[in-house]
This record gives sequence, structure tokens and C-alpha cells, in this order.
Amino acid sequence: RINADRLWDSLMEMAKIGPGVAGGNNRQTLTDSDKQGRELFQRWCSEAGLSMGVDKMGTMFMTRPGTGPDALPVYVGSHLDTQPTGGKYDGVLGVLAGLELVRSLNDLNIKTRHPIVVTNWTNEEGARFAPAMLASGVFAGAHTLDYAYGRTDPEGKRFGDELERIGWVGEEEVGARKMHAYFEYHIEQGPILEAEDKQIGVVTHCQGLWWLEFTLTGREAHTGSTPMDMRVNAGLAMARIFEMVQELAMAEQPGAVAGVGQVKFAPNSRNVLPGTVVFTVDLRTPSQEKLDRMRAAIESRAAAICAELGVGCAVEAVGHFDPVTFDPTLVGRVRAAAEKLGYSHMNIISGAGHDACWAAKVAPATMIMCPCVGGLSHNEAEDISKEWATAGADVLLHAVLETAEI
Amino acid sequence: RINADRLWDSLMEMAKIGPGVAGGNNRQTLTDSDKQGRELFQRWCSEAGLSMGVDKMGTMFMTRPGTGPDALPVYVGSHLDTQPTGGKYDGVLGVLAGLELVRSLNDLNIKTRHPIVVTNWTNEEGARFAPAMLASGVFAGAHTLDYAYGRTDPEGKRFGDELERIGWVGEEEVGARKMHAYFEYHIEQGPILEAEDKQIGVVTHCQGLWWLEFTLTGREAHTGSTPMDMRVNAGLAMARIFEMVQELAMAEQPGAVAGVGQVKFAPNSRNVLPGTVVFTVDLRTPSQEKLDRMRAAIESRAAAICAELGVGCAVEAVGHFDPVTFDPTLVGRVRAAAEKLGYSHMNIISGAGHDACWAAKVAPATMIMCPCVGGLSHNEAEDISKEWATAGADVLLHAVLETAEI
Ligand SMILES: NC(=O)NCCC(=O)O
Ligand SMILES: NC(=O)NCCC(=O)O
Repeated sequence: RINADRLWDSLMEMAKIGPGVAGGNNRQTLTDSDKQGRELFQRWCSEAGLSMGVDKMGTMFMTRPGTGPDALPVYVGSHLDTQPTGGKYDGVLGVLAGLELVRSLNDLNIKTRHPIVVTNWTNEEGARFAPAMLASGVFAGAHTLDYAYGRTDPEGKRFGDELERIGWVGEEEVGARKMHAYFEYHIEQGPILEAEDKQIGVVTHCQGLWWLEFTLTGREAHTGSTPMDMRVNAGLAMARIFEMVQELAMAEQPGAVAGVGQVKFAPNSRNVLPGTVVFTVDLRTPSQEKLDRMRAAIESRAAAICAELGVGCAVEAVGHFDPVTFDPTLVGRVRAAAEKLGYSHMNIISGAGHDACWAAKVAPATMIMCPCVGGLSHNEAEDISKEWATAGADVLLHAVLETAEI
Repeated sequence: RINADRLWDSLMEMAKIGPGVAGGNNRQTLTDSDKQGRELFQRWCSEAGLSMGVDKMGTMFMTRPGTGPDALPVYVGSHLDTQPTGGKYDGVLGVLAGLELVRSLNDLNIKTRHPIVVTNWTNEEGARFAPAMLASGVFAGAHTLDYAYGRTDPEGKRFGDELERIGWVGEEEVGARKMHAYFEYHIEQGPILEAEDKQIGVVTHCQGLWWLEFTLTGREAHTGSTPMDMRVNAGLAMARIFEMVQELAMAEQPGAVAGVGQVKFAPNSRNVLPGTVVFTVDLRTPSQEKLDRMRAAIESRAAAICAELGVGCAVEAVGHFDPVTFDPTLVGRVRAAAEKLGYSHMNIISGAGHDACWAAKVAPATMIMCPCVGGLSHNEAEDISKEWATAGADVLLHAVLETAEI
């Protein structure tokens, strides 16, 4: 079993970097806080005897050598970046549990045939630069490096420039590494495990996703002196599309979610009807059929709503992945480890996207989940117990050992 | 008649200050551009022999002396500030037509018994600091000076600090001046005069207004892993309130308008359901009964929508005035002037708010309107013809002369 206190202390230590305003974290990707978080993680890894490789996306690969001369490494990872008002565990738990696993192996003087590489993927959250899971997406060949470097944050700063600014452009070609297997341990970010009173989620699938960005063009006009029937009201179109998306998702229950996280009015003045409204829709479902059908329905119904109001409607897909099925052998090892350790467990589908979803394209991959209080995540109040954190890390240790071979 | 070319040239000259991005202006109140605009106007006034008084709200009072030893002045004014994406004529026309009136009287060597004071009111637009017509509101006793100084812009800068920064805090107590009469000439900002093919709007009333600011409190949560039925969705509540406000206004046609100009999500991240949504409603109608009833309906229905979704709902009234009836004697003089000059005219109710609405509380007041192309205003594409501008200025000249007495 891993050292529960050491894992928890490391989590608390990392949480001091990029503190939020309400007990959580604001350590968004490629900010100064992200840089500081990377440096702390690097120091800890170096103290644990790991050697560092960094790729051109800034992803950190921290290697514990194996005994097998040509054995491919087992990767264990997640991300240290957070939402602007994020929690202390989303991502961080998976990275630091990977580090704890290595520390425990060191304590016990256990060597493995396959090397073990603890990984910190760059820009998992996608909050500052869309899409999410950007570095693992490039790694898996879903995006080009140029595409990733050209992504901009809300202030117009380019990903490539910011990566260079914080000094984390590595030498390695992205995706050059070959993986024997990939494991990711993460908090559930949803309510199921807690509600079902299970310690471990054995993650069999991940929902597919579309991130749509709507740009609606209305006519800027005076809110007081423009008669109702002369308005070309992009804001009203936004409100109607918002409700339509909600209704569509409700009609597909259970097994689909859709919501709006960003809305921006321009010129955003109280007495001006907006000329432009930009907003985002996040659509997810584990069913490929539903995913395709719902995306098409959202786009066609939005177009009809806008046509009726005379509002211009452009849609850009800024993020996408299809539903993922994780590797059955690795999934079986996770389940067996939970069983062996006496932790209660159940199969679960990941509601959130994870770097494991892209890793699954290029290697056998799977995930382990632990509960989080009230299913709350992407909220500074995100919380887990030390016992939950420990159980998942123990399962990670055993499933990885089974795969990396003693 | 006034000098049409000189008026037009001055309009074009002023429009060079604080240019917009699409042919209009961004000369928001208390910015460096506003300061520049004030300086140009001050220079022109001084060249026309006017003496300046400035009050503690930064309003500029430019006086042409009268011959009557104790005759109260006739005020002629509007505003030089603009929306962030405003037109070249909204407000500016009224101020510069006042200046042109004085220049014409100088040319013709006409003296009046009552002094004439050309006025540039501070922060009419209310785009940077809500509410609109802030300085005239303090002048009329609707707000205290402290209230006005404490208003903040979206960056949190205080009105009082910004007024001091641009160097336009005057000596005069606000509202100390007594007016014989107040005239304001303005573009219609609506479609009626153009549609009815009239050159002059004889403004008999102004709609009443409520500016409501809603702050909705939901629960920040992951857009992917939070089931639909566990969401506390402040964004959805906003969309429903938006549609409810629209329906309510449509049910009161004709004679009421309502719309949303500002929406702000926090944290405004694609994969986070918003914790807070702040948005504004602008409600107007010429009927006191409708104004009160619609405001009450909006607030109670919004509360019901939020209650159903479990969303917290707070409403602040950040702007208000009751419907205004302008002074019948002055209205009659405007009509008579149009008649005498051979300009087609009709009675009209102002859809927008104006400093005249507050001036009407403390003096006989009225307005003159000219058409604008397509009824478009609060849009950089706002446009009027030179002929329209001239006709209204001619009417202003004659109505003011009638009141200031030769
Ligand atoms: N795990 C997580 O929150 N990742 C961010 C990408 C997503 O929105 O699913
Ligand atoms: N005239 C004008 O646009 N004033 C701004 C205040 C309002 O919204 O009516």
C-alpha cells in the first residue's frame, strides 16, 4: 500500500501554488503559477530519482528505469493545471499518486521490468486555451503542433508564445514515445460513486464530446428607442438556443448532457442591443449515435431559431472526441486490484474528458476513479477524503505493478 | 436660419476625436477622448465669446450674456459622450447645434434679453457608469453627488476619481443654477420620423424607464460529469428570464420595449456551469401604469423561474425615471417654429432617455428631434443627412429666440 500521509501532504503542498479565492486553485495552464507547480513537481521527481524528458508541448515525462532492456514504459499520469476557479484534486491527484507510487516502490526497493513514467500533460483543462486535453491530443495525432501553438487565450495570447514564456518548450517530438500501457487516476467529478457508496470506479468508457462555439450577429441598436419588431436581437437568439439545447438534452435522459459555460455580449452596454453574441455549448454522451444526432440537431435548430429572428449564425467546432472504450485487459487489472485490496468498486463511464481518452488511441489505456463530495468539481469547493485518495492510489499501485511486472 | 455648413463641419471635426472601429465614435465619458472633446468644445465656445462655468459633476455651462439684468438663462444642451460603439450624432448634434445657434446670433448681431447657456452634460450615455443622465440627475436632485462619485465602471474605477483624473471637477455646486427654460435637440434614435417622412419631431413626452440588474447564483460544476438533474444552472435561469422579458414586452405592444444589453458569466469557462450570471434588463414605456406593472411582473416571474431551478436571484434597480410630460408652452413654440419655417413635423414620444427628462423636473423643458437613417442609433453606422441636421437646428434657433426674447 502507498504512504497515505505522504500523498496527502504533497497534495496540500501543491495546492499552495496558484491559490484560488475560495479554498481551491487558479493555476491555469502556462501561467506563472503553472510554471511554479511544474518546478515543485520536478524537484520532487528528481528527489525520487526520476529523470525528466519534456516534449514540444511542454508535457513532463518523469522516468523510473525498468530492468528489462527493451521493455516499453508504463505511463501513469494526469495534469497539474486547473480551472480558473478549480479544485485541489482535479488532475493533481493523478499526477501526485503517480509520484507516490514511485516513492513507495523506492521505499520497498521494488524494481519493475518496464520503466514507469509519471506524466504531467500540458493544458488538460482547456479553460485558457480550447480545446481541452491539448497536449495529449497532439501526442495522439488528433491535432498538429502548429494548431496547438496557434490556440489563443481570451486575451489573444498564443499557446506557443506562452509555453516559451514560461520556459517549458521541450526537445522531444510530440508523440514519439511508445507506451506499453497508460493509467490515469482521477476524481470522478460526478456524483455516482458517492451515491452508490463505492470507493473505486473501474472506468470502462468515456463519453464523447462536441464543443461548439456560436457567433451570432444581430444589429446593435438602442434598447429604448428601437421598437420590438425592428430588433435583430442576437441576445434573444442566444437565449432560445440555450433553452433548445437544454430541452434536447432533457429529451435524451439518461445518458447525455449539454450546457453553456461561456457567454460574451458585444458591445455589452446596458442600453445597446448586442451586435455580437458569442457562446459555447458543451455536449457529451457515451453513445456515438446520440453524439452525432444531437450535434446535428443543435446546429439545425439553432440555424432555424436565428433565421426566424434574422440573426446571423456561425458555428465552430472547437473541441471533439468520440466515445472511448478503455482496454479490457487493463480494466480487468484495475477491478482485480480493487477486489484484492478489499475496496468496494463498480464500473463507471467517465463524464469528463481526460488525457487517457487520447492516450487510448495510441496505447492500451484505462482509468481509476475515486468519489468526490457531492459530485462537485470545476468548483473551488471540490473535496475528497484522504481515505478515498488513498484507496485509488493503492489500486493504481497494484494495477501498475501487475502491468509493469516485478 | 443657422449656418448649415458650419454646423456640419463642426460635427465632422468633433467626430475625429475618439474614433470608433466602424466609422462611428468611442468617446466614452471621462476617458482621455472625452477630455479632448471637452477641450475642443471649450475652444470653440471661447472663440464664440462664451464664458465657462463647470459644476462638480463636470458639466460645462457656456454662457452668452443677455441684456436683461435679472433674466434667468435659457439653456440649450445635450452631451458629447458616446457609447463604446456609438454614432457621430447622438448627443453631439444637440450640443453643437446650441453652439451654432450662438454663432448665428453673433453673425446677425442679435442680442437676447435672457442669457443663453450651451450645456454639455457629463455621462449622459450611462454605458461606462450606470445610470445614464447621471449629471443632469444630480442637477435635478434625483441623485446625491456622493452617489454619483461612487459609481464604478466595469474595471472598478470610480466616477469621482475619473472626473478628477481628466481635470474636469468644477467649482459650482450641482443644481445651483436656475433655468428660465431648457431645450434639447437630438436625433430620434428610432424609425418613426423617417417612416412618416417628417423633418421635425415635436417631442411631447419621454418614456419612463427601469434599469434592472440581475445577479443569479448557481453552482459551479463540471459541464461533462454533472448530470442534468443535479445542475443548479444560473445560465439556464438567465435564458428563461430573457425569454420571459421578451414575451412580456410583446404582450404589451405597442407602447413598451424591454431588452437585455449586458450578460456576464463567471467563471466563464467552457466546461464549467456558471456560478454567477449578471445581466441587465432595460424596460421602457410611456405609461406609468405599464411601467410599474411590468417591473413588478418581471421581478416576480424571474423569482419564480429561479426558485424552480434552485438558483439564487437578486435584483438591483440601477436606473429609473418616470414618464415625462414636456412643458406645453415650449412644445407649442417648437411646433410653431417648425410651422413658420415650413418644415414638416409631427408629435413624438422620446423612446430614449435624455438630460431634458431630468431638466424637466426643475424647469420648463422640451426637445426637438430629427430623423436618423433606419432608426439606427447606439451603432457606429448611425447616420443623418445634413438637411435633417439643419432643419432641427433652425427650429431650435427660432424656439429659443422666442423664449430668450430679442
Ligand atoms: N477532467 C476534466 O475536467 N477535464 C477537462 C476537460 C473536460 O471538460 O472534460
Ligand atoms: N439618448 C440616449 O441614447 N441616451 C442614453 C440613455 C438611454 O439609454 O436612453
